[in-house]
Amino acid sequence: VRCMVELADKVQALVQSQSFGFKVIMAQEEERRRVAREMHDGPAQAMANVIFLAEVCEKLIELDTGRAKEELHELRQQILGCLNETRKIIFDLRPMALDDLGLIPTVKRIADILKERKGIKVSVKPLGHAEKLESHIEIGLFRIIQESLNNIEKHAEASEVEILIEFQSDWVAAEIKDNGKGFEADKNHYEGDSFGLLGMRERVSLLDGELVIHSRPGEGTEVRVRIPLSAATREAKQLA
Amino acid sequence: VRCMVELADKVQALVQSQSFGFKVIMAQEEERRRVAREMHDGPAQAMANVIFLAEVCEKLIELDTGRAKEELHELRQQILGCLNETRKIIFDLRPMALDDLGLIPTVKRIADILKERKGIKVSVKPLGHAEKLESHIEIGLFRIIQESLNNIEKHAEASEVEILIEFQSDWVAAEIKDNGKGFEADKNHYEGDSFGLLGMRERVSLLDGELVIHSRPGEGTEVRVRIPLSAATREAKQLA
Repeated sequence: VRCMVELADKVQALVQSQSFGFKVIMAQEEERRRVAREMHDGPAQAMANVIFLAEVCEKLIELDTGRAKEELHELRQQILGCLNETRKIIFDLRPMALDDLGLIPTVKRIADILKERKGIKVSVKPLGHAEKLESHIEIGLFRIIQESLNNIEKHAEASEVEILIEFQSDWVAAEIKDNGKGFEADKNHYEGDSFGLLGMRERVSLLDGELVIHSRPGEGTEVRVRIPLSAATREAKQLA
Repeated sequence: VRCMVELADKVQALVQSQSFGFKVIMAQEEERRRVAREMHDGPAQAMANVIFLAEVCEKLIELDTGRAKEELHELRQQILGCLNETRKIIFDLRPMALDDLGLIPTVKRIADILKERKGIKVSVKPLGHAEKLESHIEIGLFRIIQESLNNIEKHAEASEVEILIEFQSDWVAAEIKDNGKGFEADKNHYEGDSFGLLGMRERVSLLDGELVIHSRPGEGTEVRVRIPLSAATREAKQLA
């Protein structure tokens, strides 16, 4: 009978994971739509405007050099704004720093962005010997930290966040702690329809890791994740 | 015993769907990386170059109006190329025509793109009364047709493609038929590691639909998909 109960649990978990597949696909379409819309309303519009300005300048250049120069300056400002916006969209999609520099510098960068945007003080502390992890572990851990910071920004009303990232020979762990308003961990207003949290849990389980979330009203929130580094991963690191 | 066999099949399907969840997440990260890279190497680089050109123009304008005008013309060409490239990336991400105009015009557009790019003759024929479907059905059907055309472009060596889309009161179906080289449907060189096909199957099953692929070496390939419109969907349409 115990065997059947375990089987039922396993089936239950799998059914949830199937509906997870559906949610991931819908979320992916939603993300595509959002990014397409962002690029269309932002950079693409701005570029169309710059093309118009360039035409104006070409016509003005012989008639009124002074005004042509002004328009040209305006054009340069607009294209600069457009480039910054494009860079932001690119960074949100996939921080290239992650591939180029690794986890810690990239986490520090999103911490700085949150600090700038919301005035929340964020500290990032690496423990142990920080090293380049396998790409799917690194991106998974990064997305979990990113999602935690998103949640803090949206819901927590926190003024301080502490991010610890610990590297050990056979596991890597992260802890994201804020001093915000917290929530009742057993209430489902956090667990409920939050795709973000569901996505975090699923990512962690795909990496054979563990995720623990501690929170109490008025006492902030603590997200802890721990991911094992497989023997294969360790060997690859020693060979590299 | 039959019950246990069915249960085992069900568990097996669910296990596959779990690994599907993993593949979707990895594919999503891969897509993000690709789009970020495309935007970085394309539009963002071009914009940085345009900013440089604008600076040059500003300096030249009082020294050499003729050359300033030439540079300005070059600048306008570059920003136009940049805008076209950006629009292409936006369209690949999420054809906004799908939300704005519906399935048939959007499929006609990707058919035209394939025609232009590869010289493959593609015809799109709607049957029955074409109408706006629920968004998740429309995008699902569109992605299946898009993926079929991708496969034809990559593997089929076809010169002609016929796309039929049939609307009925309680289902919608699509048939994508090419005259390419075909394949042995029971060999796994098509089924195997093709995430595209796996994704198609999963999308269809999430929509409670059916997918059939017919192919024989030398006799082209036929992809048929049929998706039921639920009673709820029909009611929503009647109310709309």
